[in-house]
Amino acid sequence: MGDLITQAVEGRLFRADTALFERVRRSNGSPEAKAAAFADLARFNALYMIARAGSGHIGSSFSSLDIVTWLHLEAMAGDGLPDGDLYFSSKGHDSPGLYAVMIGLGRLPEESLDGLRRLGALPGHPDIDTPGIVTNTGSLGMGISKAKGIAIADRLAGRDRRVYVLTGDGELQEGQIWESLPSAVNQKLDRVTVFVDHNKLQSDTYVEGTSDLGDLEAKFRAFGWHVQRIDGHDMAAIRTALDNAAADTDRPSIVLADTVKGKGVSFMEHTAMAADQLYYRYHSGAPSADDYRRGADEIWDRVQLRLGELGITDAAPVAVDTGGTAAAPAGPRERMVDSYSKTLLACAERNPKIVALDADLILDTGLIPFRERFPERFVECGIAEQDMVSQACGLAIGGMLPVANSFACFLTPRANEQIYNAATERRKIVYMGSLAGLIPAGPGHSHQGTRDIAVMGSMPHMTVVEPGFAAECEALTRWCLEDNTAGAYIRLCPLPIERDFEIPADYALRPGQGTVLRDGTDVVLFAYGPIFLAEAMKAAALCAEAGGPSVRVIDLPWLNRVDAGWLAGTVAGVGDVCVLDNHYTLGGLGSHLGVLLGGLPTPPRLHHFAVDEVPACGRNDEVLAHHRLDARSLAERIRSATG
Amino acid sequence: MGDLITQAVEGRLFRADTALFERVRRSNGSPEAKAAAFADLARFNALYMIARAGSGHIGSSFSSLDIVTWLHLEAMAGDGLPDGDLYFSSKGHDSPGLYAVMIGLGRLPEESLDGLRRLGALPGHPDIDTPGIVTNTGSLGMGISKAKGIAIADRLAGRDRRVYVLTGDGELQEGQIWESLPSAVNQKLDRVTVFVDHNKLQSDTYVEGTSDLGDLEAKFRAFGWHVQRIDGHDMAAIRTALDNAAADTDRPSIVLADTVKGKGVSFMEHTAMAADQLYYRYHSGAPSADDYRRGADEIWDRVQLRLGELGITDAAPVAVDTGGTAAAPAGPRERMVDSYSKTLLACAERNPKIVALDADLILDTGLIPFRERFPERFVECGIAEQDMVSQACGLAIGGMLPVANSFACFLTPRANEQIYNAATERRKIVYMGSLAGLIPAGPGHSHQGTRDIAVMGSMPHMTVVEPGFAAECEALTRWCLEDNTAGAYIRLCPLPIERDFEIPADYALRPGQGTVLRDGTDVVLFAYGPIFLAEAMKAAALCAEAGGPSVRVIDLPWLNRVDAGWLAGTVAGVGDVCVLDNHYTLGGLGSHLGVLLGGLPTPPRLHHFAVDEVPACGRNDEVLAHHRLDARSLAERIRSATG
Repeated sequence: MGDLITQAVEGRLFRADTALFERVRRSNGSPEAKAAAFADLARFNALYMIARAGSGHIGSSFSSLDIVTWLHLEAMAGDGLPDGDLYFSSKGHDSPGLYAVMIGLGRLPEESLDGLRRLGALPGHPDIDTPGIVTNTGSLGMGISKAKGIAIADRLAGRDRRVYVLTGDGELQEGQIWESLPSAVNQKLDRVTVFVDHNKLQSDTYVEGTSDLGDLEAKFRAFGWHVQRIDGHDMAAIRTALDNAAADTDRPSIVLADTVKGKGVSFMEHTAMAADQLYYRYHSGAPSADDYRRGADEIWDRVQLRLGELGITDAAPVAVDTGGTAAAPAGPRERMVDSYSKTLLACAERNPKIVALDADLILDTGLIPFRERFPERFVECGIAEQDMVSQACGLAIGGMLPVANSFACFLTPRANEQIYNAATERRKIVYMGSLAGLIPAGPGHSHQGTRDIAVMGSMPHMTVVEPGFAAECEALTRWCLEDNTAGAYIRLCPLPIERDFEIPADYALRPGQGTVLRDGTDVVLFAYGPIFLAEAMKAAALCAEAGGPSVRVIDLPWLNRVDAGWLAGTVAGVGDVCVLDNHYTLGGLGSHLGVLLGGLPTPPRLHHFAVDEVPACGRNDEVLAHHRLDARSLAERIRSATG
Repeated sequence: MGDLITQAVEGRLFRADTALFERVRRSNGSPEAKAAAFADLARFNALYMIARAGSGHIGSSFSSLDIVTWLHLEAMAGDGLPDGDLYFSSKGHDSPGLYAVMIGLGRLPEESLDGLRRLGALPGHPDIDTPGIVTNTGSLGMGISKAKGIAIADRLAGRDRRVYVLTGDGELQEGQIWESLPSAVNQKLDRVTVFVDHNKLQSDTYVEGTSDLGDLEAKFRAFGWHVQRIDGHDMAAIRTALDNAAADTDRPSIVLADTVKGKGVSFMEHTAMAADQLYYRYHSGAPSADDYRRGADEIWDRVQLRLGELGITDAAPVAVDTGGTAAAPAGPRERMVDSYSKTLLACAERNPKIVALDADLILDTGLIPFRERFPERFVECGIAEQDMVSQACGLAIGGMLPVANSFACFLTPRANEQIYNAATERRKIVYMGSLAGLIPAGPGHSHQGTRDIAVMGSMPHMTVVEPGFAAECEALTRWCLEDNTAGAYIRLCPLPIERDFEIPADYALRPGQGTVLRDGTDVVLFAYGPIFLAEAMKAAALCAEAGGPSVRVIDLPWLNRVDAGWLAGTVAGVGDVCVLDNHYTLGGLGSHLGVLLGGLPTPPRLHHFAVDEVPACGRNDEVLAHHRLDARSLAERIRSATG
């Protein structure tokens, strides 16, 4: 869920080498003592990875690490797929912790410590292209269902193994979790054991304050599972819970593990939050340089104590000088989510019917000012996108103007049938999906919303838009809330962008029409959104430098409702039209324009540049280049296609 | 869910007129006696409507009618929207019963009795364009969420009313139901009362044998709701339950109503099923002529008794002669689902890794032979599409070749994020969506899958196909199961079709390429699927009769993976290309071809004929004409566009 992209920590960082993990495993301590030391070493390295990457999830990496460590060191038999015991995290954002364990075990190369969220290395959320990763996660709620499928396959294949799944507690708000429980009991899938990393907090704040889960033990018991509750940081308790789960050969098992979010660094532990502190600070995003150093020191101090108990007294962390790799931009920056947030609030001041709904991403979707100003008109739905959308439909039935917010990747496919259902009622509901498009590329494909135009644009009574700059974001948000009569979907880039192109002085929003950002005579290039517009402008400049063609760049924020008359005029006399889609090939702006352009008396040639494979994870510049959607690649493609 | 399209009953049918309902309401009997008589009159008319329409849901109309009647006669205050108490069915397929009640109350015109599933009249599932209908349903699991939204809007607006929702019991397998429960408690939405029509059967068979719900009372109690269990056919018990629900001003209420599916006609009651009878016969589809007459007689006999108790002794049913409106086609017919079923079975004989998954639509998806032949390789998931798809992913992880089946309208949007997640793993999973496209048009837009190409085609590692005739269905199914290396989605028309065009003698499946069904020189018309190919062929013939243009008709079953080289050759020398999409405008075959055609050195003109609004409900011929997608309209559009 929440995935704030912050700055990498610069300067000297510290990590533990794999040999030290190995020494811990070979030491003479008790399994519990060795696991505790191993887990703290993994915490030390997970913190390094996140600090170095500039983003990642500290809180749940730390809360789950004792369980993950015990499973890998003591519980799991065999070596993963195809026949060994399996472990995977359903929530998936605890991957830095898991990676640190796997590196510590030597199952991933030590240099992977420098590869978190980098192209070709360790993605922000688990992916099967990483050795040892069982399944792709990061989309919540699927884990128990998958474990059931594996267990059924095992039965059919005559394989005897256990499947361990970790879920979050916020994740339990997803309906699929409960949907997946009954058949595991009916089919007696006793080889499935689920740990709930019950750290009491979800992306934004306390589970209790988001969508209280009530008596979890009673709920799971009512669904017929074998239920235990333990201290998830007590290795002996984890061992006993696993023994008990194995002893029940009739039922699948749930282990509710009480854990502390941020466990292992005192000021990151959620239990250290002030009584009046609403939001937890270490769910996602990198630590500050100061937090990093204090945190690393604290973990290492404890590591030394634990190593000493194991007879290891000569260990030292490895210092790594990261240099100044990620200088913050200097100029003023625009952030679409901020413009949206501000405009939504202004419209809500005028229209008392506006109600905002959130699915546990208030820190990412810019809704804090709204919540503070209109607490009674703010509905926190928790991680429950389907429920949120159908509630929005109910609010519209009751005369309100609901505005439903989440990440593009979760909102638009997860609640797609619910959104369509409301669209068939012609309800005026405004949907906002942040984290839309290929960039930021660090969280990985579960979080890169590159299918949302297709799944939202392919329904009636739904206009899909993406603004390219702050003024346009404000105008589009106002249009969706105040002018449009039916549904609309606003897709937004969450990154602060230093805009390096000029907006025409006479800029005005015209439904279905675009804005010329740069003139040109040979080729028309349509693009949208701050990052892709910037690449388009740079590509046009590169073409000009290279002697042609002369590229007209048009910002077209209307993605499924383009004015055919305006389009005809815009491309008149031009033989080549290029469309740059921050989206998968089918169903984006290119699909819409392809049909419209084909309908002209003399259709121009169309060249479509889009995401044509699963989005890569990595640094933004790496990933744009990988998909050949950076300015340099685009210039080459335009020159090649039109030359 | 299940929606078998059968034949209308011909000849003499019987209905009760609205005046008789009015006399019952004004009689001097007890509220309970009046409601019982009213409910049986409504059963009598619901049976008439379904027999006349040729399809509809008898079983759950009858099981819910006592509750629905009591609510409308005795419990609900005010007159619906905007301020009165509200009732709606979340499952929605019990609409004939609800319509019969509303007609009996004079809220819908009496002639509506002849309008079930007809254009501009009463849709197969509820739609807000029908007076008194609160919300569109037919997509399962959304009802409680919507009721919450309405209740929150009521609070904000200072309105005091109750919202009553009916759910099915099979519907409780949908995760959204459980996702929606916690916040109703946390927000103390006591004005929401949910009746579970607990008739123990779902689309195909017993809930217990599909995906056993276990101890429902315990489950709902664990979620913190006020829970009662009653006999759903006992009017006094319904009254008491409503009193109890109203008395709890702190919690929302669930009333588990034990009901009998098909209640009121002895041989339709599920309790009359033989011990060895697996499938219930009256979930969907019209009754046979004989079943109709026996059923109507039995209901009327009881009506007379009840009327007698109310002092009404002169009532008679109104006879209506329907004539022979819907003659069954005479020639041999092809049914894609049968060809798919046969081929799947043949492939499964060869490949022991094939596992079929179903979401409570075994009667509609052709899986009965598979289940009988390979019971251990058949996974009945219940109405739980997300869980089904993630289980399929788990099965693939475990080395199996899973085949996931449901209706296009439910499978592809509801489980979209799960399907995409598996696609990012490049899993070989075959998805089959029946009821794809505009036709059959009787169930209404919740069941008309006109967005599935967009939401499935817009992901990597996923090929979308639709066969147009039996031989092609067999070839495509084999290709998906045996030749393709990644995911595939097979969309199917469930209707038996008398094919009236010839297949070329040298027909062979070529990936990415189509088949010329009729030659022509001026225009190329691409189409797919049995019904739209038939319309395309007739439209081409009509153009020829009208003096031109000469239309080449090409069957193109590959909907998102067309061979660009083949396409270039196929349209070479032709100025106009038409694409007929059995799909919404964005994201269908037209979107894919638009970009490919635009990439040709000299792009042809493109004319796209697609569904451009919410699909209409009605008789198939009415709805094709309404959307201007029947042969006559298409011929006019082709002539107009290219002339």
